[in-house]
Amino acid sequence: MSAVSAHAHAPSVDAFHRGRFVLVQPRRGHRAGLDAMLLAACVPDGFCGRLADLGAGAGAAGLAVAARCPQARIVLVEREAEMVAHARLTLDHAANAPFRGRVELLAADVTLTGAARREAGLADAAFDFALMNPPFNEAADRASPDALRRAAHVMEDGLFGRWLRTAAATVKPRGGLALIARPQSLGQILAALEGRFGGARILALHPRPDEPAIRVVLRAVRGSRAPLSLMPPLVLHDSAGNGFSARADAAINGQTALFDG
Amino acid sequence: MSAVSAHAHAPSVDAFHRGRFVLVQPRRGHRAGLDAMLLAACVPDGFCGRLADLGAGAGAAGLAVAARCPQARIVLVEREAEMVAHARLTLDHAANAPFRGRVELLAADVTLTGAARREAGLADAAFDFALMNPPFNEAADRASPDALRRAAHVMEDGLFGRWLRTAAATVKPRGGLALIARPQSLGQILAALEGRFGGARILALHPRPDEPAIRVVLRAVRGSRAPLSLMPPLVLHDSAGNGFSARADAAINGQTALFDG
Repeated sequence: MSAVSAHAHAPSVDAFHRGRFVLVQPRRGHRAGLDAMLLAACVPDGFCGRLADLGAGAGAAGLAVAARCPQARIVLVEREAEMVAHARLTLDHAANAPFRGRVELLAADVTLTGAARREAGLADAAFDFALMNPPFNEAADRASPDALRRAAHVMEDGLFGRWLRTAAATVKPRGGLALIARPQSLGQILAALEGRFGGARILALHPRPDEPAIRVVLRAVRGSRAPLSLMPPLVLHDSAGNGFSARADAAINGQTALFDG
Repeated sequence: MSAVSAHAHAPSVDAFHRGRFVLVQPRRGHRAGLDAMLLAACVPDGFCGRLADLGAGAGAAGLAVAARCPQARIVLVEREAEMVAHARLTLDHAANAPFRGRVELLAADVTLTGAARREAGLADAAFDFALMNPPFNEAADRASPDALRRAAHVMEDGLFGRWLRTAAATVKPRGGLALIARPQSLGQILAALEGRFGGARILALHPRPDEPAIRVVLRAVRGSRAPLSLMPPLVLHDSAGNGFSARADAAINGQTALFDG
């Protein structure tokens, strides 16, 4: 129980948006970073409504929206007790004082349905926008293509189906949705959007100009029937050098939104 | 019945691949061009198997493969009598003599199933590769999102479902598929691929670097369980000027394939 080992178990405090906010998160397990910042960058500049960060972890994406959009009100929704505790430490950290009063924490399971979901604090049509970065590698995410084909309802009830069901219930008509995922989840995502969100705009994230995408971010509108579109991709690193491209750097650091309007 | 009006009703003869083949097609209605050339460019360089051009029209994509891949054997599959007649004129044209013996014409409906499909000449596992550019604006392509959601089998039985069912039946295990479509059809396409083709690689076609995609081309493998990937997009025109980008020009003119391997 030396000071060194005590320090090793203390949470880390990491600055984002060039120091405009910090995140208090466990040193082990999934640590927030690029994905959460790019997800937050899907929210339009000037957003001034109420936003749900579904599966918020320690609060990275929600805080990033709060930092860029000074009128936004944020609810961090998280199920895991350890992450709820770290989200609380994040909100209580002195460096995040500017966001106090605009960011709340709700300990709830995103996949709840109906009355149980409402009783957990996720009321119907309560939000103007929902963000989600669902965890990778859940069983439903690995369902075989044959299984998916045999029972199309598996998609509905799969990982993205469950998360988008809650997003559809809790976001107002014409409200927004943004998610970040692996490209291989695109089929499940598009199936789960059907009848819930439309006007989807997909932005592929390529590490280099000549490499396949490692992530997609998707922005959509509750109840829209507009067709899907594929936007020009975001290249994270230019052909030469290891720094971020100018556009990626601006998005990651809260200088600009990834989508118009 | 003047010479002028007779000329107006004669088919047009259009050169592709810088004159390496010609297409005889009606002056009215859908005319083959960019889409067919980009679709053909999805076939790997050096392809030497048997390929079905499903819904071949006057034969544009199939001829483009024949012109680039000197060992490929092509079957043009077309339902509409007028297009079958023009495909025949295309194959009989003196300029296309180099491909005679390697390109056949089959008058058949791509959407036939089971015994009717086999009797029409589309035997099971008869091809190493299938190309398709299904017509836009069929009723199934305009099915509402709600309708799609209510009955997921609509996707299975929709435009892409019917065409991909035939592709899956007629392409050998590990054989290839390429299609070109509008981005808004991506949800239907991915649903119809499930359990049939995997390892999908999607290439978005953007008219300019900063504009949304107008088409997607997709390459997949029969029976593969590999995940989907999003390739770096193809930009048709550089930021300045009206000519094609070097990569688009090479693909459209049969100088190179759009996908490795």
